[in-house]
Amino acid sequence: MSEPFDAVDVIRTKRDRGVLSDEQVDWVVDAYTRGAVADEQMSALAMAILLNGMQRAEIARWTQAMIATGERLDFGRLSRPTADKHSTGGVGDKITLPLAPLVAACGVAVPQLSGRGLGHTGGTLDKMEAIPGWRADLSNEQMMRQLEDVGAVVCAAGAGLAPADKKLYALRDVTGTVESIPLIASSIMSKKIAEGTGALVLDVKVGSGAFMKDLDDARELAESMVALGKDAGVTTVAVLTNMQTPLGLTAGNALEVRESVEVLAGGGPGDVVELTVTLAREMLAAAGRDDVDPADALKDGRAMDVWRQMVRAQGGDPDAELPTAKETHQVLAQGDGVVTQLDALKVGVAAWRLGAGRARKEDPVQAAAGVEIHAKPGSEIRSGEPVLTLHTDTPERFGRALEALDGAVTIMPAGSRPDLLPLVIDKVR
Amino acid sequence: MSEPFDAVDVIRTKRDRGVLSDEQVDWVVDAYTRGAVADEQMSALAMAILLNGMQRAEIARWTQAMIATGERLDFGRLSRPTADKHSTGGVGDKITLPLAPLVAACGVAVPQLSGRGLGHTGGTLDKMEAIPGWRADLSNEQMMRQLEDVGAVVCAAGAGLAPADKKLYALRDVTGTVESIPLIASSIMSKKIAEGTGALVLDVKVGSGAFMKDLDDARELAESMVALGKDAGVTTVAVLTNMQTPLGLTAGNALEVRESVEVLAGGGPGDVVELTVTLAREMLAAAGRDDVDPADALKDGRAMDVWRQMVRAQGGDPDAELPTAKETHQVLAQGDGVVTQLDALKVGVAAWRLGAGRARKEDPVQAAAGVEIHAKPGSEIRSGEPVLTLHTDTPERFGRALEALDGAVTIMPAGSRPDLLPLVIDKVR
Repeated sequence: MSEPFDAVDVIRTKRDRGVLSDEQVDWVVDAYTRGAVADEQMSALAMAILLNGMQRAEIARWTQAMIATGERLDFGRLSRPTADKHSTGGVGDKITLPLAPLVAACGVAVPQLSGRGLGHTGGTLDKMEAIPGWRADLSNEQMMRQLEDVGAVVCAAGAGLAPADKKLYALRDVTGTVESIPLIASSIMSKKIAEGTGALVLDVKVGSGAFMKDLDDARELAESMVALGKDAGVTTVAVLTNMQTPLGLTAGNALEVRESVEVLAGGGPGDVVELTVTLAREMLAAAGRDDVDPADALKDGRAMDVWRQMVRAQGGDPDAELPTAKETHQVLAQGDGVVTQLDALKVGVAAWRLGAGRARKEDPVQAAAGVEIHAKPGSEIRSGEPVLTLHTDTPERFGRALEALDGAVTIMPAGSRPDLLPLVIDKVR
Repeated sequence: MSEPFDAVDVIRTKRDRGVLSDEQVDWVVDAYTRGAVADEQMSALAMAILLNGMQRAEIARWTQAMIATGERLDFGRLSRPTADKHSTGGVGDKITLPLAPLVAACGVAVPQLSGRGLGHTGGTLDKMEAIPGWRADLSNEQMMRQLEDVGAVVCAAGAGLAPADKKLYALRDVTGTVESIPLIASSIMSKKIAEGTGALVLDVKVGSGAFMKDLDDARELAESMVALGKDAGVTTVAVLTNMQTPLGLTAGNALEVRESVEVLAGGGPGDVVELTVTLAREMLAAAGRDDVDPADALKDGRAMDVWRQMVRAQGGDPDAELPTAKETHQVLAQGDGVVTQLDALKVGVAAWRLGAGRARKEDPVQAAAGVEIHAKPGSEIRSGEPVLTLHTDTPERFGRALEALDGAVTIMPAGSRPDLLPLVIDKVR
């Protein structure tokens, strides 16, 4: 088949700081997906995009072109509005677990098509799979039925949504071209727009444990994604949130499920509760239901009821014992004072090395592995008291996890104050 | 086998404007050659190098790493010194044909490992193959014997020299990463240094028909290559020469052989003679023989004698009729006046389309196809007189060749002067 463009011409355009035409974008994304543009050509283009950028209209076209390579879902037949949440990934970010049933309990359906962890950030599906019997793979029909019956579903995104993104993401991962704001924004938004949600709240993490270490970059990504959502007719809001330190007191799959259930039971760490309620308010407002206060639904057990239905609908037993690790190791405070820093990246890498994450997509994860936190920034502590407990089924992993934690905890003299950004830093609408 | 580096880390270093360590360079070049670094990873790295550059020490190490992937020849056993010439490629650039026997006739051996044409620039091997019976492929032993016996050899570079460069060049060609001065310089110099020549003269072309359109870029490339040669102990000189207009009066394989034989017979176009003698002087001087005047050896027939031996030694018949094209078509002047411009690129593309060049490496070329020039810049011409004659065996090619020639010839009123750079623009030592 004769192609209307030459891949080298498209690459050269971006290499020489030009703007790709709509036709070039449509062609290169489609041709890459069907194999007419080779991996080595797309990786050169991705590097040129990373280094030379894309204009807003180019990013929008690129996103649409990725959507056009696959199917689109339609939630229009549901009896209630839909809202989805996407987090750019952090350490201890279990928010989807309490959030999805909470928003559903308030009358807005939550289709949460999720991914698995890669690197030091956890994945929602890995966390849910710590629940005995729970399974991530649903057909589109099963997902629609559960959304109608229960109101919330957390499941694996089908291969049919934006296959270009799946292929391109795998390529970027091995070619040093992940960290491009246009490519990140179009990757996230192509899946979310194809999924067909009516409203979308983006949790853009900032700080050591996040993809975006820098507030300006995070803001640029948030603005880019909000613009893409609006262009596609999806009410989109972004919340910039702090990922200098882990969310809550756990990082690891079963550990985070346990903490999420505590939040649904009306307890749990303050930061997890605050972020869950903040994002729930944004989702409800974006879906036109700002008359409901999600804090009530968390307190009175309605969110917990939806959680139990949601788990059961996907084969899980909400009353089953969660797996616990065969071995634990405590990290003790080396002095008296106040914890002023607990580095999210170091804790995330430690949890990953303990077995909570995977180095390659094919690797299994340990459900029980992870890090439990006893003292967050602001806590007073005495020498010899535990700061962290490490959990793993394979104790030979403790050594490398402890290496990752070198310098993770900063303890300053009594009276010191941690220098932290607020949990919710800003909103982009 | 466990690798000492991760390709993504190497790519990121260059992407983030860092300097690759010696160990990173050695590893990535070697690992790419043996397949442990994938094409899509090397193309992302090549794009990062193209956009972010390399320091002089990095380029030198990259060149050495490419040489280390293959064999090195050694001309030290020959009874005379060696000098080689490399042209960055132009239109009508047949200089190697008279130059190699001329320098050999003056007592310096010329090992001319050459390539084939790709795109609008011709290749020396394609030109020589227009001579009935001549063959390009020699073993290293045959090449050495001919250098000793005849003093000049033009043959295909063996696959054993810098195999990394062969693989990387093919990749750059399809990924828009050809136009990087560090990568061009290291590609050329890795082969020339591995070949083992004692002295090297680089003919760096500048102008529409050259790879470098811009004098500053050409100078940067020349300086980079001269530095690489010196670092490797090869006496290296670069001559910047004009490629705004074709060299001589022919572009095409058999047409250029005929013109080269005219030069060897003491005639031929002035620019071809001038550049041949200039480059011969540089080669002789670089090889320590600046006591000899090559102009004499051209006039008195000694260079022609070596040419005939050189052709015969590789199976060619220097007295055979050269192929002529089945069809010709004349391009006539559209007005009276002075030719002020004859665009090298347009003439090169026309010759290519007539069959003198190839679109893919595997394609055959037509020995007789090409463009004959009747009026070069500075010539007076009258309306209706021929400016060019097009030659091909396949007359259906005339149409696209004529399209390429649109605007190739500029005729200005009588008394006008062409605004041309000198043939030899500058020298870099």
